[in-house]
Amino acid sequence: MDLLDKRNVPVESLGGLVYAGQKEHNPDIELDECIDAVYHVLNKREIQNILLLGINLDMWADRGIEDQYLAEILNEDSGLFQCDETLSHGCVEIFGGIGISNLGYLDHVKPGIIGKVDARKNSCNVFLDDILAGIVASAEAYVANKHPMGVYREFEEEK
Amino acid sequence: MDLLDKRNVPVESLGGLVYAGQKEHNPDIELDECIDAVYHVLNKREIQNILLLGINLDMWADRGIEDQYLAEILNEDSGLFQCDETLSHGCVEIFGGIGISNLGYLDHVKPGIIGKVDARKNSCNVFLDDILAGIVASAEAYVANKHPMGVYREFEEEK
Amino acid sequence: MDLLDKRNVPVESLGGLVYAGQKEHNPDIELDECIDAVYHVLNKREIQNILLLGINLDMWADRGIEDQYLAEILNEDSGLFQCDETLSHGCVEIFGGIGISNLGYLDHVKPGIIGKVDARKNSCNVFLDDILAGIVASAEAYVANKHPMGVYREFEEEK
Amino acid sequence: MDLLDKRNVPVESLGGLVYAGQKEHNPDIELDECIDAVYHVLNKREIQNILLLGINLDMWADRGIEDQYLAEILNEDSGLFQCDETLSHGCVEIFGGIGISNLGYLDHVKPGIIGKVDARKNSCNVFLDDILAGIVASAEAYVANKHPMGVYREFEEEK
Repeated sequence: MDLLDKRNVPVESLGGLVYAGQKEHNPDIELDECIDAVYHVLNKREIQNILLLGINLDMWADRGIEDQYLAEILNEDSGLFQCDETLSHGCVEIFGGIGISNLGYLDHVKPGIIGKVDARKNSCNVFLDDILAGIVASAEAYVANKHPMGVYREFEEEK
Repeated sequence: MDLLDKRNVPVESLGGLVYAGQKEHNPDIELDECIDAVYHVLNKREIQNILLLGINLDMWADRGIEDQYLAEILNEDSGLFQCDETLSHGCVEIFGGIGISNLGYLDHVKPGIIGKVDARKNSCNVFLDDILAGIVASAEAYVANKHPMGVYREFEEEK
Repeated sequence: MDLLDKRNVPVESLGGLVYAGQKEHNPDIELDECIDAVYHVLNKREIQNILLLGINLDMWADRGIEDQYLAEILNEDSGLFQCDETLSHGCVEIFGGIGISNLGYLDHVKPGIIGKVDARKNSCNVFLDDILAGIVASAEAYVANKHPMGVYREFEEEK
Repeated sequence: MDLLDKRNVPVESLGGLVYAGQKEHNPDIELDECIDAVYHVLNKREIQNILLLGINLDMWADRGIEDQYLAEILNEDSGLFQCDETLSHGCVEIFGGIGISNLGYLDHVKPGIIGKVDARKNSCNVFLDDILAGIVASAEAYVANKHPMGVYREFEEEK
């Protein structure tokens, strides 16, 4: 997506967050696999749709939204708006329950590029930071499902 | 919300759909209670946020969206876009699981005002029809929870 | 899953429902592809977990649950219980927003094997009918995403 | 719910977690209001249903589940099972998007009683820890919505 480029978000920085999140569960994981997982997520139509809508909404807010209420809410990035969370949540759903738990954590902690985007002062990023969290959470869920542990690893080996 | 007025959606028509949907489960229900349920739903901040965002998106599409991809998708109201469903789904969640099941049904059948809004040719209503379905489904869930049947009615009476 | 066998649910009957649901959107679809889509869905770990839990819960209710409240609720299959819908909803989420809309429709209409399972009198099937609806809705979403129409088909061809 | 009593979970300890979570957003909040918020959440039918099902599932696992796969999975409390997250997620949905973000955070950090329940060695608590996180997250969302900040406070005052 060149929309990510336009908003200055390197895919590698998202891969780094996936790596940081999954390393504690799986010490053998490598950064390259995590970056590939982000590309896998970015190839999903649902993710592309939400990214397309979210970044366009942010850019619309940058140019000035006519409706006064919506403009004020986006300008403040109020925690009670929640439409940004609803959309990022829609990203993650397709990667199952693990993703949703990861998403909540990333939303609170806002590590790395997510926090940087959230803190940008010269442009609106109400939707983008949440969607980035959604992409990282999704890629984490994808990686976790590819490397089952414990009972689930045994079930795989039985097959 | 005068935004509903602006887009020609009478609250009474939504109440009528709630009544039609709940009458089979509860023959004693009255239309007035169903209209009140719609007003109750419209008073929730989450619903207002989604309605505010959705109607503004539709009106933005009417005026012309700069991004070519997003403009084409909204122009066609493609079933694979799904951001409209994600938002309407966010409406309904706060009224529990019954709402989600009702929403899917209303999305397929598009009865009454929902179908009329969906069929309007001279304006974009990609988000509005789904959000209306979300409001009706939410009001139905609210009514159903207020009139428990069977075991749940007994549990209430025990208290 | 031999659990489906144990509860007398032929995978072909689920494939038939997928075919019936998707034919109106895509007249070229064939039954075999729909049955394959059901197998694809049944191979997902999330679906297997929910099926494993749901069928075991139904069989537990058949043998008699100690807790009086839970036993009464499952015995009546009350619409206000909603844990069955929450789990079937968890099935479908991983196939995106289209699945959720399909699920609501199938939950209301209960076509074919779903209705038959729901109507069985000599065993508890509180969870199974909803999970079957979840599997069919998921397979429908999978098929719909594989055959994009309109703008999305054009986007695919551009690549 | 005397089921919480039975599993040694004092409601006050849940109220304390709500207080700890919301204090940073709203320094004027008091513990009593947070405990009341937990009782409000526990009064919701959806929450009671999920708690009833979850605790009964844990107690069933304590007594021994016949199905070998399900028994092994619950015994290990595998992160890939996800049915526990799906149910706790169902708790929180009815309190809107803020709740879902809080839930993910609590699931990772497992503060206070949630971590204690998760660490109990002599009984199965696969479902209970997640449902407790769901109750705390829900009560946090309820408190946050009652004390709107910034633009939303202004909107309230305008009315």
